[in-house]
Amino acid sequence: MPLSQLLKGNVAIGQSGGPTAVINQSLVGVVEGIRQGLHAVGVVDRILGMKNGVRGLTKGEFHDLTDMHQDRLDRLGMTPSAGLGSTRDKPDTNYCQRIVDACRTHNIRYFFYIGGNDSSDTCRIVNEIANSSGHEMRCFHVPKTVDNDLMENDHTPGFPSAARFVAMACMADFMDNISLPGIKINVVMGRHAGFLTAASALARRHDRFTSIEGESTDGPQLIYLPEVAFDTDRFVADVEAIYAKKGRCHIAVSEGISDKDHNPIAAKLIKGGQVDAHGNVQLSGSGALGDLLSDLLKEKLTPAGGKPPRVRADTFGYVQRCWPDPSPVDSVEARRSGRFAARLALSGERDGSVAIVRQSSGTNGMPYLSTYRRVELSAIAAKTRHMPPEFIKGHNNVSQAFIDYCLPLVGDLPGFERL
Amino acid sequence: MPLSQLLKGNVAIGQSGGPTAVINQSLVGVVEGIRQGLHAVGVVDRILGMKNGVRGLTKGEFHDLTDMHQDRLDRLGMTPSAGLGSTRDKPDTNYCQRIVDACRTHNIRYFFYIGGNDSSDTCRIVNEIANSSGHEMRCFHVPKTVDNDLMENDHTPGFPSAARFVAMACMADFMDNISLPGIKINVVMGRHAGFLTAASALARRHDRFTSIEGESTDGPQLIYLPEVAFDTDRFVADVEAIYAKKGRCHIAVSEGISDKDHNPIAAKLIKGGQVDAHGNVQLSGSGALGDLLSDLLKEKLTPAGGKPPRVRADTFGYVQRCWPDPSPVDSVEARRSGRFAARLALSGERDGSVAIVRQSSGTNGMPYLSTYRRVELSAIAAKTRHMPPEFIKGHNNVSQAFIDYCLPLVGDLPGFERL
Repeated sequence: MPLSQLLKGNVAIGQSGGPTAVINQSLVGVVEGIRQGLHAVGVVDRILGMKNGVRGLTKGEFHDLTDMHQDRLDRLGMTPSAGLGSTRDKPDTNYCQRIVDACRTHNIRYFFYIGGNDSSDTCRIVNEIANSSGHEMRCFHVPKTVDNDLMENDHTPGFPSAARFVAMACMADFMDNISLPGIKINVVMGRHAGFLTAASALARRHDRFTSIEGESTDGPQLIYLPEVAFDTDRFVADVEAIYAKKGRCHIAVSEGISDKDHNPIAAKLIKGGQVDAHGNVQLSGSGALGDLLSDLLKEKLTPAGGKPPRVRADTFGYVQRCWPDPSPVDSVEARRSGRFAARLALSGERDGSVAIVRQSSGTNGMPYLSTYRRVELSAIAAKTRHMPPEFIKGHNNVSQAFIDYCLPLVGDLPGFERL
Repeated sequence: MPLSQLLKGNVAIGQSGGPTAVINQSLVGVVEGIRQGLHAVGVVDRILGMKNGVRGLTKGEFHDLTDMHQDRLDRLGMTPSAGLGSTRDKPDTNYCQRIVDACRTHNIRYFFYIGGNDSSDTCRIVNEIANSSGHEMRCFHVPKTVDNDLMENDHTPGFPSAARFVAMACMADFMDNISLPGIKINVVMGRHAGFLTAASALARRHDRFTSIEGESTDGPQLIYLPEVAFDTDRFVADVEAIYAKKGRCHIAVSEGISDKDHNPIAAKLIKGGQVDAHGNVQLSGSGALGDLLSDLLKEKLTPAGGKPPRVRADTFGYVQRCWPDPSPVDSVEARRSGRFAARLALSGERDGSVAIVRQSSGTNGMPYLSTYRRVELSAIAAKTRHMPPEFIKGHNNVSQAFIDYCLPLVGDLPGFERL
């Protein structure tokens, strides 16, 4: 498109929802993309970072990023969490009208929102209202979520780094479980999608240098996903079988496991449970689910007149989404996703989201390669992607197809020696 | 001592108590030290690793490490957790008699036990019984504990790596807390000693490259140690003051916090709480303490007719003692501690433990340097070192002296950029 036909004005960039280890890479990517593109050619004047997402935007609260030194940008990219501040606000139509009013006030013509499916929906509504109310705008969504639950994406920025944390934590914790045997439960983030919990399977032995006592014995031996109805009796039987055989059992459980009627197991348990702006019960930031499952196993697996088994539960908590050792693949892709969104604006697109496409699998000797494409906001907005059936094996495991999918994303994992 | 006067026989090495990220470095250090010393000169025949510590020893269960390839040893050193398997058994006199009987059966003349103060006590008793029952032996303790609670030591192998995890987790989690403000509690390991919880203070800004809004605002703003009586009313008031000012509050709490009568706050709360062989209530592997403190703050800080503040609690759990990215200082010192113990045996010592001595501080432009010395088993055995008063500041903070002590041990920490 000729430059003269591009909207002239300012850019606003925001971050929304739970932060990740690489969401700032996407922020930096958008800033770099705009500086090298629309700003360099004089179409865009200021590049404004919204403080705490749309909440700050409506109050006119910004960090001006237009002239930020590249060294600071690079360091910001390597900083976990949302550098601009985030928000859990999910704007309705009225709220979006106030967003558009603020954009008019500050002559914002390009709106970039980095977040999950709710953020994509916000982009969609802002875009509609802006264009119907005479303040023409371009609205772009940049994907981010450790849950990996966006449609149209091979995977989403943020997921590989969180998956790396979960894999490394389970690798190390399994060694701990071998050295002091017992039953160990690790609770992993993921309200509706089990990808992150499934990543615990990467903890199983992949280094072939050392003596192997048989892969099926590697932890976690049991993996429970939100996509599969959780039955407590079946859970107890699963654990009992492995514990009887090995004298230990290593388990990964999604915080979002639900019964057959889709009631979260955790929701029943959290005293004074908080509900966020989206009506969701708080699942993270509490050890309640792990402790419940732990109590259940102690009760059910205590032999008559005997001592209860050693059962421990850890809940990985927020550190899994912000651990400051991101996957190298994730860091690069998050940055490039931001740059790609800026390029969409330069090429005259009116709106859209960015999706990562896997060009080469990263398995069977093929290198891992990815690229980016534009997708419609409506294809992402307010929709949730789940673990596809081919990634799930039975009611308590993941498939080799999932391992092949996930392993190329997380970076090098350490190789352990076992006696 | 002339070689002819050294006891001839086999070596047994065991690991005891909670594993760490570097306890296998100490194991490898002992093996290397023996192979290059007593084994090379023909005094020692086999180097036997006890499976699950003294428990395996009494059953004659060993891994023979005499001829293990150096590559495997090196990889074992980099593997977290106790490669030989660990035990929580705390042998009494009868149990120690059985240990000595097993040593006689397998002609074990050198006994190395890697563990905390209980393991040192085991060494002491085994040594006494062996020498009084006509099976002359040499018994050495190699220090290990993430709690850093051994007497005579500047610090203990295992602590720096766990401290590194706690510092990095708190750094990243504090950024998360800024981006989505609220009250965040992180519960850290440490039953009686607060060193590991204190290490959360390293999360405060130490990179001076970036704009600083004032160091006191960096998280965690509040640190609660087991050495200082915990008063719930004072805790609520502390949090309230910071939350009122900043709209957020970042807190580190030791799992071992106790009231003024030394009753652990956690012990009252854990349903079906397990007691280990040492009579201790289970503190780790449960989110109960964090959830209790979380509920308390929600209850006390909810304004009349208003909504409760956003409060989240994470319990770092076992991953803090086994995270597979150890402090480089710790890896080296753990290995050398093991080698030093082997050298004590070669030099004719009858028993002893190893202590790390800091030769050069690592602060004020001085490099960090450490060395090793022999200490009496009785100086370590069954004693607990606490945070000294000069490391504690008020009832909810640590001193600069502690930061200067701890920072050189944990390795490089990432530098974050803040807008």
